[in-house]
Amino acid sequence: MRILGIDPGLRRLGWGVIEASGSRLKHVANGVCESGTGDLAPRLLSLHIQLTEVFNRYLPDCAAVEQTFVNKDAVGTLKLGQARGIALLVPAQFGLEIGEYAPNAVKKTVVGVGHADKKQVDHMVRMQLPGVSIVGPDAADALAIAICHSRHMGGRNLRLTA
Amino acid sequence: MRILGIDPGLRRLGWGVIEASGSRLKHVANGVCESGTGDLAPRLLSLHIQLTEVFNRYLPDCAAVEQTFVNKDAVGTLKLGQARGIALLVPAQFGLEIGEYAPNAVKKTVVGVGHADKKQVDHMVRMQLPGVSIVGPDAADALAIAICHSRHMGGRNLRLTA
Repeated sequence: MRILGIDPGLRRLGWGVIEASGSRLKHVANGVCESGTGDLAPRLLSLHIQLTEVFNRYLPDCAAVEQTFVNKDAVGTLKLGQARGIALLVPAQFGLEIGEYAPNAVKKTVVGVGHADKKQVDHMVRMQLPGVSIVGPDAADALAIAICHSRHMGGRNLRLTA
Repeated sequence: MRILGIDPGLRRLGWGVIEASGSRLKHVANGVCESGTGDLAPRLLSLHIQLTEVFNRYLPDCAAVEQTFVNKDAVGTLKLGQARGIALLVPAQFGLEIGEYAPNAVKKTVVGVGHADKKQVDHMVRMQLPGVSIVGPDAADALAIAICHSRHMGGRNLRLTA
């Protein structure tokens, strides 16, 4: 079962692909789609094109997207919402089921505690995907989301080493 | 010059097409894309499919989208943001330039005052597009956005009858 995790963001949208087979997890690829600066619509189009390419290239069986953290910064929430619209649209265009996980649920699944910091998440992702080379924090988060999904969807038998 | 106005919303996304020729405006079509209820991703996909069909059918030269009203309801802002991501993506996929207008700017242009109510907007849209049949308030808002864009983009010579 190939899982593509997405950490949505307008400027940088992280993605990570893993292969889950029973309790075994294997890293496939990870990366970041960047949308640059300037007008919003071309940036959303750029994210859509890049993310579509990732799906075409790695042909995942399902996808998982981080739930957006809603905060008091309404302008930031709106921006993130627009990027998240693209992050949800692309897997739906490929006919895939999409898991959605709150950031704390991802941390709890991958690290064992809901309030783990970025370093701990990065560390546990590397432990669970030996030999992985991660392009940056957004890609690490996306891999963590994919791992979280592998845990919650598939496998009653799946045991993480956390 | 054919202009497609969009009033973005997750449940109901209004659209309206007008033809602007100098100071003359003509109604072409209007409608509402509905996304039903249930999971977010299929709803966004449904909006994307319906809106793409509208663009394919009416082949506008440009598009205009209402700027989303950011308020204290963060969850509502996020939902709207996700729908707005689709509303901006589709015209960008058709290579069109997109005007963005705040609700008050639309009202000021179409009615003459920034705090006009929905009834006034509806009334002035009907005056400026004689004989128009409007499917609902979201479509009326979308036509108002198209009228606003025709005023601001094109025409130094354009005079609305407001």
